[in-house]
Parts: sequence; structure tokens; C-alpha cells
Amino acid sequence: MRVELLTVGDELLLGDTINGNAAWMGRRLAERGVEVTRSVVVGDEPDVIVAAVEEALGRADAVLTTGGLGPTYDDVTRDALAKAAGVALVRDPALEARLRERVAKAGRDLQPMALRMADVPEGAALLRNSAGSAPGLRVELGGGVVYALPGVPSEMRTIMDEVVLPELAAGAGPLAVARRTVRTAGLWESVIAARLAEVEAMPGIRLAYLPDPAEVKVRITAAGGAAQERLAEAEGRVRALLGDAVYGTGDESLASVVHRLLGERGATVAVAESLTGGLIGAELTSVPGSSDTFAGGAVTYATSMKHRMLGVDAGLLDEHGAVHPEVARQMAEGVRDRLGAGYGLAVTGVAGPDPQDGRPVGTVYVGLAGPGSERLVTAPRLPVPGTGMEIRAVIRRMTVVHALELLRRVLAGVAPEDVARDAREDREERG
Amino acid sequence: MRVELLTVGDELLLGDTINGNAAWMGRRLAERGVEVTRSVVVGDEPDVIVAAVEEALGRADAVLTTGGLGPTYDDVTRDALAKAAGVALVRDPALEARLRERVAKAGRDLQPMALRMADVPEGAALLRNSAGSAPGLRVELGGGVVYALPGVPSEMRTIMDEVVLPELAAGAGPLAVARRTVRTAGLWESVIAARLAEVEAMPGIRLAYLPDPAEVKVRITAAGGAAQERLAEAEGRVRALLGDAVYGTGDESLASVVHRLLGERGATVAVAESLTGGLIGAELTSVPGSSDTFAGGAVTYATSMKHRMLGVDAGLLDEHGAVHPEVARQMAEGVRDRLGAGYGLAVTGVAGPDPQDGRPVGTVYVGLAGPGSERLVTAPRLPVPGTGMEIRAVIRRMTVVHALELLRRVLAGVAPEDVARDAREDREERG
Repeated sequence: MRVELLTVGDELLLGDTINGNAAWMGRRLAERGVEVTRSVVVGDEPDVIVAAVEEALGRADAVLTTGGLGPTYDDVTRDALAKAAGVALVRDPALEARLRERVAKAGRDLQPMALRMADVPEGAALLRNSAGSAPGLRVELGGGVVYALPGVPSEMRTIMDEVVLPELAAGAGPLAVARRTVRTAGLWESVIAARLAEVEAMPGIRLAYLPDPAEVKVRITAAGGAAQERLAEAEGRVRALLGDAVYGTGDESLASVVHRLLGERGATVAVAESLTGGLIGAELTSVPGSSDTFAGGAVTYATSMKHRMLGVDAGLLDEHGAVHPEVARQMAEGVRDRLGAGYGLAVTGVAGPDPQDGRPVGTVYVGLAGPGSERLVTAPRLPVPGTGMEIRAVIRRMTVVHALELLRRVLAGVAPEDVARDAREDREERG
Repeated sequence: MRVELLTVGDELLLGDTINGNAAWMGRRLAERGVEVTRSVVVGDEPDVIVAAVEEALGRADAVLTTGGLGPTYDDVTRDALAKAAGVALVRDPALEARLRERVAKAGRDLQPMALRMADVPEGAALLRNSAGSAPGLRVELGGGVVYALPGVPSEMRTIMDEVVLPELAAGAGPLAVARRTVRTAGLWESVIAARLAEVEAMPGIRLAYLPDPAEVKVRITAAGGAAQERLAEAEGRVRALLGDAVYGTGDESLASVVHRLLGERGATVAVAESLTGGLIGAELTSVPGSSDTFAGGAVTYATSMKHRMLGVDAGLLDEHGAVHPEVARQMAEGVRDRLGAGYGLAVTGVAGPDPQDGRPVGTVYVGLAGPGSERLVTAPRLPVPGTGMEIRAVIRRMTVVHALELLRRVLAGVAPEDVARDAREDREERG
């Protein structure tokens, strides 16, 4: 079963919107054993959509479109599908009644253009949209099938999960390909690839490296017979070769692993954030139920707040500025003590775009105060990619990962010396 | 000048990576008057890449590819371009020397497969990559031109800005299309579209609505003669019809507007965050130089921390739980006073996926304490899209926008009654 995706919308070609829908659909389909072989974006022009649908059906069994089903005049996917099928657009009375009812219930007047959402290519099946107004459509076309879904992510996802995926998975047959993603932090892509050369050489096994700021996901694919068994074998080798750098698999985030390790010890963490401005707290609280292990945080972005909120020595701040290893240590101790947490985790550094207190962009110190007398400060040297505002976002994101990774390693029982050594090696690696 | 984008990589089809490169390129090209007419993603297969390049050149003047130029064996764009051009891949000695030098400087051994990056289709021009190892390539092909760029965003962006955009813009001619994006918060897309019907009817003017959680960007496009003048006229009408809901244009973020308004008054804000866990602080500190107007923040995710860190009345928390308007008010006052800021901004609520203290997912209170006796609490009722973990991210993001928007309106001098009324209307709108 080969599937192509067709995303419709000028806003995607103009880059006002990133194509998150295609990524989500690709993942969900792969999980069900359905292969996406091509993904195309076109603008809001009926003729271009018709041509793209026909080309795609020449290569694939099914085409999934998103976008262009809304109420406004730039929503033209319905028109294009009618044209491709050589049928008329007809108003569906039941759909019209449902639209009028929804709007009346909200005490509003129906905008005349909203009735466009009740128009359907003759013969198309309606796919129930329990998350919004416009239903999806299924149109049989020249031996293939087109599923047209709304562009609003929550509506697209709902119709995918409730209708389209069950239908496609029924026709997909048993999985001939098995995939798993192993997540790592703290090692460079090139170092990982060199270490995994022997796994690359295993028959029927392919590796792909998906780098994110300060993280690398290694996707293992096993194709052919006994795919699951060979996948398990390859994963075992990958884990053995990468050791402590592996923190999880699949959708497991670094934050969720940290919460699990804290929970196992009955411990909590409090965070003190300077350059990240709240991102570490946001990452930790992205996990539901995190209030059991996340005590809270202090965002001390301005230098004076490091003294005021956390008790960092004012003389130290005057003499060295805010970007200093001892400041990171005192911030970690301060937040741990003031919030009554088991661990205190702190970051201070320069996110850019300009240097600060004479320190270059990318200078970052991560401080960790443990429940006893344990104190650690690491200085991951972050590469400075690109220029301007992009630096800032990447450095902040890398800092979040390095901080969570330091805490994870300490909780996982890697000796402090090893954490410090890894940080040093990391620095040399970056030259 | 028509340009198509071709992004190469299994990870994009599988949804492990979102196609941010295509969005960035589309934006940059549109700014220079170059129209992207189609954007295609294919996997790491040479034959498929060859076919996609040839199809694209049949429709467009230039094709920009990203991905597949790295050192590993799944990087096959070089091979595909050589095949499409009917030439051999030849090793470039200068490029090889540069690779060896880079690696030696970092004190590492050259991985044999890294030498693949020195292979070039015969006759291709090298595009300098000042941000990494693999250069871009320019290949003339059947009357058109292919620019091949690395998939690493910082490297792709550098080569685009330094080489490709200047070359393409030189051939693009004067801008026949003018575009502007007006940014709004707090109004629904359907309400905005209904209000702007008369602008839609202006000749040569097109509107597009780009909804984000709790924000809508309205993109105005003017095509044909005197595009700039007509764009200005349309923007004036849009602003008049949307009034206070417009907070900025183009890339201007809500956070940057809040900082500007605070700066004009010489005021600062401190934030107290519950369900957002640090996202409001992160958003405010995404703007460089924000330490002048952002005092700091307290992340009081656990209920007990609202009392401990902010002095919220313990009896109130015991009786009503953390999700209550009076809790939001006391959090705002508490953080303002403890951090010595002019304004205190606070949020408490239920991000999901499960209800909390008997309150449904999406219940949110935003508290604002002004420098004098001003106190405001709003209760934006947030629609609950989709299910499970997605809810959580969307509700948190909407809460950030509603909080910043409340502060913006107060700073911009909209009377408190109006803010409260807008919040009520907003609620009715959502039925």
C-alpha cells in the first residue's frame, strides 16, 4: 500500500505555516505499516490541485489531502476534487442542516460563505468530523482513492484516527518493515555514526540520524523477514555501543525520563533559570502529573534577581557578572533550599545575539545541587550556528537539553567524574 | 521566475522531522519576489530524486533541493544530480584538502565515508558553505538550474542568504505582488473573516487567515499595478475594522509589543505561572534585551508553591484548590510585590489531559496586578481541540497568548471594562 500526501495552501508555499500536518500523518501511517512515498504542497488553485491529485494517483494507491475544506473563498479543494472526478458539486441537505444548527446553538448568524462547507462532489462519501464543522471526503478516482481532510490540525487528526487510519491499515497487510527510534543526548552525530558502523553493516538494517539541538535520535529500520527479531538485535547493539548516552526510545522525552528517575527516588527538583527564561520549567511541566516531582522554579533573568530571589552573593555578581560557574552553583543551591526540593538545577549563560559581560555567545554554565553535599557545575561549549536571532533559540534549546541531561545522568547513577569527563570530551569534539 | 522546492529525506516522509526548511525558504524567496509554486518531499532514493528533479524542471525555472549532501550512505542527492545531468561524480581535490584540514584542526580522524562530501557531479559549481563542511552545488540541467543545499538548517540558511537568494533575486524583476501580515489576538477567525468582507471585495486584494492557538494572522496580498499603494489602503481598512485586536505586523511578536509598551512607561513585569510552567517567561525572554522590562518569574506548578513562593492564602487554596479567580489575583499581587515589579501577571488553570480539582480541562484564570490599585482577572474559556496530549500543548500555548494579550491591552490604554467585555464576548462566540 503506497500513499502520497498532498497539502493544499498558499500559506505553506509562502512559509507562513510549517507543514506539521504532513509530519504527523507520516508518523501515524508508518506506525500502521503504511508507507508514505511522496509528500507534495501546492497552492490554492483548483487546476494545480487537480493535476497534483492525478499525478499522485498515477504513482500511489491512495492520496491524502489536507486543507482547502474551510468556508472561505480560498478553500477550493472541494471544487478541485469534483473537477478531477468529472462530477458536479451538490449541496448536502443534512450537512447544511447540521451547520445551521451548530451556528444557531452558538447564537450567531450563518455567514453565507459558510454554506460552502455543505457542498460535496457528487458520489463522495462524508467522513465524520467530531472536532469541527467541515467533514472529510472520500472520493474514488481512476482506480485509486482520495481522502480529503481539513487543514485544522485537531480536525485532521480526529478524522485520521477515527476513520482514515482504520480503513488504510485494513488494507496494509502485515508489517514487512520494523522501526524503532533510540534517543540520545550529549554526543555528536558524527561520533555516533562512527561508533555504529558495525550496526550499519548488519544485513537488512538501516540507520538514520535525526539531530535536534544537543540531541540525536537514531532511527533503526529492519526490512525483510523476521524484521522484529532483527530490529531487537540491532537495538541491543546500538545500546551497547552508545552506553550512557541513550536515554530513551520512541516518543519518550528527556523530561519524562527525569521525572521517572526522580519518582523512583521519591525526590523533587527545583529549577533556577537565567538565559532559558522558563523553558526548563516548561519542558518539565509538559509531562502530565509532573507536580509530584517538579517542585517549582525561579526565572531570574535580570542579574539583580539572582541575588534577590535566590541569594546569590551580590559581590560575586558585581565582580564577575552573571555568567560564571560559581553563580550557577549558588543558583542551584539557592533554588533547592528556598523551594525545599531535593535537587536544585540552574543555568546561566549568554544566548545572544550579542556577548554579555565580556563572555561570548554560547557560554553556558549548568549547576546542580544534590540532596547531600553533591555539587556539580558543567560548562557545555555550545556551537554557534547561523547568525542573529536563530542563535538565540538554538542556544536556549541546547541549554535545556544539557541541563536535563546532567540531572538525568546523576539520577541514573553515573559518577560525577564521568559527567565532567563527558562534558570535556564534548568540548574537544567540537574543536 | 518560478521556483520549486525539493526536500530529500526518509525522516520527513516518516514524520520524524517537520519540514521547517521548506517554510523558511518559501518565506525568504517570497520576500525577494520569487514565487514558490510547488514543494515536494521524497525519500533517500536516487531514482526517485532524479524523476522529481526532472518533473520539477518541466514546470519551473529553478529547483532548490535540500538534504542528502552529508557524509553517510543515505546521503544520495549528489549521485542523483550526476545521474540526472548524465555526468560522472568526480572527487574535488581542493574540497578533499579542506575536509582533511577541518578534521585535523579538531584533532580527529577523518571517517572514510566523510570523503563522499568531496564528490561533485562533473561541471557543477560549488556554493561556499561558511557554516559547515558540505558545499552547496549548482547544476545547469535542461534549460533550468538546480541548487542543491545541505539539510542542516544553519548551513542551508547560510548558503541561501550568501549565494542563492542574491542570484535568484537578480533574475526576479520588480515585485508585482505586495504582501503584508497583520497580527491579531483574542478574536476568532470566523469573526475576523466576517468583519473583513468588504476588504475581500477590494479589486486585486486577497486575504488569507493563518490561525495559531489564540492568534490569527491576516495576510493581505495586493497584485497588479500600484500594488504597494493598494496594499497600504487595504491594511488601513483591516486595522480600522479590527480595532484593538491588531497588535502588530510581520514578524513582530506579542512579547516584543509588550516589552515596547512597558519600556515606554519605564515599567517592568513579573510573572507567576502555574499550568504554563515557564512558557510565559520563556516567551518574554525570547526577545533580546528583555531584562530591562522583564523582572523575573516564579513557576508555582505545585499548589503548595503558590503559598510558599507567592503568599497565596493557604485557606483559599485548601477550600477552592488552585484553579480559582482569587488565586490568580493573589498570585499576580504576590509576584509583583516579591519581585518589586510594576506589573504582576499570573495564570492558573487546567491544561489536561485530565480535569483538576473538579474543574474541566481548559478552565483558565489570568490575573493582572497593576502598579496602583488596578486588579483584573479574566477567564478566557478555551476550546478543547482533539484529545490526549495535544490538548495540553494547545491549552498551554493559548494561555500564554491570553495572558500577554491582557497585559498588552491594559498597557495600550484599553479600559479594564473593555478587556472584561472582550473576554465575555469571546466566551459567547465559542458557544
